[in-house]
Amino acid sequence: MNDLLLRALRRETVSRPPVWMMRQAGRYLPEYRAVRAKSDFLTMCRTPELAVEVTLQPVDLIGVDAAIIFSDILVIPEAMGMHLTLDEGIGPQFPTPLREPADVERLRTVVPEERLDYMLAALRMARRALDGRVPLIGFAGAPWTLAAYMVEGRGTKQFAVAKRMLFEQPAMAHALLDRLAVAVGDFLVAQVSAGAQVVQLFDSWAGALAPDEFRAFGLPYLARAARRAREAGAPVIVFAPGAGWALDEIAAATGADAIGVDWHTAPAAARRQLAPFPVAMQGNLDPCALYAAPSEIRARTQAMIRQFGPTGHIVNLGHGILPDVPPAHARAFVDAVKEWEWTPERVAACR
Amino acid sequence: MNDLLLRALRRETVSRPPVWMMRQAGRYLPEYRAVRAKSDFLTMCRTPELAVEVTLQPVDLIGVDAAIIFSDILVIPEAMGMHLTLDEGIGPQFPTPLREPADVERLRTVVPEERLDYMLAALRMARRALDGRVPLIGFAGAPWTLAAYMVEGRGTKQFAVAKRMLFEQPAMAHALLDRLAVAVGDFLVAQVSAGAQVVQLFDSWAGALAPDEFRAFGLPYLARAARRAREAGAPVIVFAPGAGWALDEIAAATGADAIGVDWHTAPAAARRQLAPFPVAMQGNLDPCALYAAPSEIRARTQAMIRQFGPTGHIVNLGHGILPDVPPAHARAFVDAVKEWEWTPERVAACR
Repeated sequence: MNDLLLRALRRETVSRPPVWMMRQAGRYLPEYRAVRAKSDFLTMCRTPELAVEVTLQPVDLIGVDAAIIFSDILVIPEAMGMHLTLDEGIGPQFPTPLREPADVERLRTVVPEERLDYMLAALRMARRALDGRVPLIGFAGAPWTLAAYMVEGRGTKQFAVAKRMLFEQPAMAHALLDRLAVAVGDFLVAQVSAGAQVVQLFDSWAGALAPDEFRAFGLPYLARAARRAREAGAPVIVFAPGAGWALDEIAAATGADAIGVDWHTAPAAARRQLAPFPVAMQGNLDPCALYAAPSEIRARTQAMIRQFGPTGHIVNLGHGILPDVPPAHARAFVDAVKEWEWTPERVAACR
Repeated sequence: MNDLLLRALRRETVSRPPVWMMRQAGRYLPEYRAVRAKSDFLTMCRTPELAVEVTLQPVDLIGVDAAIIFSDILVIPEAMGMHLTLDEGIGPQFPTPLREPADVERLRTVVPEERLDYMLAALRMARRALDGRVPLIGFAGAPWTLAAYMVEGRGTKQFAVAKRMLFEQPAMAHALLDRLAVAVGDFLVAQVSAGAQVVQLFDSWAGALAPDEFRAFGLPYLARAARRAREAGAPVIVFAPGAGWALDEIAAATGADAIGVDWHTAPAAARRQLAPFPVAMQGNLDPCALYAAPSEIRARTQAMIRQFGPTGHIVNLGHGILPDVPPAHARAFVDAVKEWEWTPERVAACR
């Protein structure tokens, strides 16, 4: 069993860091596109056989050290009763976004074993299919990120409608975030029961919030969901891209086992900010660096490993892999990590 | 003459900070929309009478302490020979973006007095029309930001095509940035000759670059343009949103008189980072905060003033004002600054 990820999460000594990629079960893989050509994205999420097939592809084809279950963060709002559509080229949409407090009151309470059973079934099936080869990661969107989507109805550059709610109707925002924190936490607990060995919280739109708003509307609910998830006994990774200034506050508030670092943040800066906390770090090569030649990818990846240091580092990109990256370049990234060895000299040079 | 802006840029003692807003001559004003209804955006840029009319509107209607000439950062690429279109709802586009080194070689050298004379004429006319009421600000886009647009052909969320060039064709990128640094610097010098009393460099897409790429492709060219502009004798403000981690490096490299702070960065963090440098700071209320009630806007604005402290602060938003903000809320923001007084007690409390 390759347990590098679990060991890095416990900040144990490893000869090399584990590596996986956000969106590794995705469009850059021709094998993924072949599955996707036959069924739409939401059908893939809801059909455990298909979800498991693409979940395993990067393990088999690219050689990553972890599998992350194929799904989408918007399954929770859908389970709360919001109609979700996914049109080619536009991305996920809620045609009837939340606009007033009554819309929040109408949302259903989520019992994961009922309305999200398809993802739990996929986790159980993936765990069996992996048969211990690499650990299985579950995930969910964080409350603020889900709330932003539910209010906007779609992804935007600025989330101005959602932010307008924070300033104009803060009570509605808190009511919504409160319900989401419970749903997200419960869902992650159910995922661990179904076989997830690690769970990751994605606060993908953390960067839409200024510091004061992140502290008021983002962090407290992220922390509640993360702390509830930790009760299930599996390690929790928290990733809040665009909030690099807050890594220390996130570590303190969430009690997470690892903090994701986006590509805007220099590894040395992340390490400095997180030094007082008992956390691992995950990240953070710029996904665009995978456009470079394989030799350049190798050099950049190993330079990054050196900067994060020998303890408690999980190699990843600093955001999801882009759909037009050649699979050979993704493999060059993973191979560069596998080639690395934390020799005593290299460890000493990092002190 | 209201010279608060110039005094704050010299970090002199002021009884209250100056205030203006990025995009203050813009769509949130009904009076702007009335002008805009009769001619398209590019015609407004190219017709000094129209540009000056909207440049003065926020001075008259909102009471800001500075006028910024109405124009667009993309006038430089256009002067270099790129065809620029501006369709409603899509934003500015270059239908024939740069794709290979030969495209860069074909670009024209910009002589501001020839191909950008309309903006210089607008500055001269605006300066006369202002008649010393408030200082006049000129501006240009920074090299990386212009290059990103010229390669992408339009604004995007990630600028992945432009970043791909940095990784795949770095020599082409440097050749383009080199030409842009000269054009931008020369243009700002010409703007000062035409009457601009302050100039601002907008590196609007600095946030698309990871630290290593910003240091290689962003900062050196931003610095060259800024240092060339400073030779003209007017103060230079540099704003690189999304690069809050680099405020100190930007101050050191550019020698700017003031550094813009985006709304992602807490004022106290900016102040700490910039403490070793002889620079003023400009910013940084979240534009979405103008959705709040006027009493809340007032409280937030004055809290921000307190955090930036009494010396060398220019009040602004942390990004451009949004088009659906009520003008009364913009006025509440400006009035909150005008009400403020740096009493000895308040100054002492900031030490």
